[in-house]
Amino acid sequence: MFITFEGIDGSGKTTQSKLLADCFAYHDVVLTREPGGTYFAEKIRKILLTSEIDRTAELLLLLSMRQEHMEKLILPSLQAGKIVICDRFIDSTIAYQGYGLGISLELIEKLHNLINIKYPDITFILDIDVKLALQRAQNKNKYEVMDLSFYNNVRKGFQTIAAKNRHRCHIIKETEKASSSQIHNTIINMVSIR
Amino acid sequence: MFITFEGIDGSGKTTQSKLLADCFAYHDVVLTREPGGTYFAEKIRKILLTSEIDRTAELLLLLSMRQEHMEKLILPSLQAGKIVICDRFIDSTIAYQGYGLGISLELIEKLHNLINIKYPDITFILDIDVKLALQRAQNKNKYEVMDLSFYNNVRKGFQTIAAKNRHRCHIIKETEKASSSQIHNTIINMVSIR
Repeated sequence: MFITFEGIDGSGKTTQSKLLADCFAYHDVVLTREPGGTYFAEKIRKILLTSEIDRTAELLLLLSMRQEHMEKLILPSLQAGKIVICDRFIDSTIAYQGYGLGISLELIEKLHNLINIKYPDITFILDIDVKLALQRAQNKNKYEVMDLSFYNNVRKGFQTIAAKNRHRCHIIKETEKASSSQIHNTIINMVSIR
Repeated sequence: MFITFEGIDGSGKTTQSKLLADCFAYHDVVLTREPGGTYFAEKIRKILLTSEIDRTAELLLLLSMRQEHMEKLILPSLQAGKIVICDRFIDSTIAYQGYGLGISLELIEKLHNLINIKYPDITFILDIDVKLALQRAQNKNKYEVMDLSFYNNVRKGFQTIAAKNRHRCHIIKETEKASSSQIHNTIINMVSIR
């Protein structure tokens, strides 16, 4: 089973992916993230998050890291019967590079189709008010200093992706009142149902 | 004018591109190289040449670096009326990743078409005996430790590219006897003729 967590920075993806990974007491679980996940891709991640590069170049770089991640970690783990939980995956590229930065969605899709990307079985999209999320986000990388309108576009992007991919995407509404463990329980129920 | 030099490692590309750049006394010349050419791409180059990564991931990484190189250096320089001389470009990807490492030529072409690559006006393909070239090649990066059959495939790849692209590609035969300055003279004549 291949599970991904998506959402804007500060939406609680990282917390929720860790909480879910800890639940599978009787299964081998691989908890990983993008951009990154392999030795090579984590080295590139550092350059990516601190460099101002051309948007299309950045898209291709993300694709390269995803391909390496798939071939070296995700596919071998799935083939070995493990559960793979990934903090960000293809939907982040569509939401950030497409809806946020304005790269053609068609180009993003064509590139992913050319490399035969494996889509997740379940995707949890953590949906949260942008202002609240940015208050939470601690590490200020180059995306996290973008303005509110950028983040509103990215959030709408995730909502659109969820609407288009109901067979795998589940929107989880985050509010100021909901605790991490309440949200975790919602997620666990959805995984169990499947 | 956009001029590229291509050939296997040790074929004398770097020497010849420098000699040609020095010739244009009355023109602004930008001498650059791939993989690399920009601050970002040169940082990635170091990781690329020392990491064992998936072949398709490597191809996408090269594309990303090329896109950045085009947008940040090559196109702005050409638009400013400068002559751009580049040590390796798209033909190296076709020869090394395609003919050498066996990635589908169709995939390489489709990816380049998706990002609207600018093709060179003139390409010099320095053709040399593989054994002689490898004796010359000094820096042993991960490609330069590949075996003779790999290099023979890459060389044949360059020859095929030249045959398919006669409008821009010129094969320059290198021999043990031919000096750098003799080869340089051949190249200068071809540039002047155009």
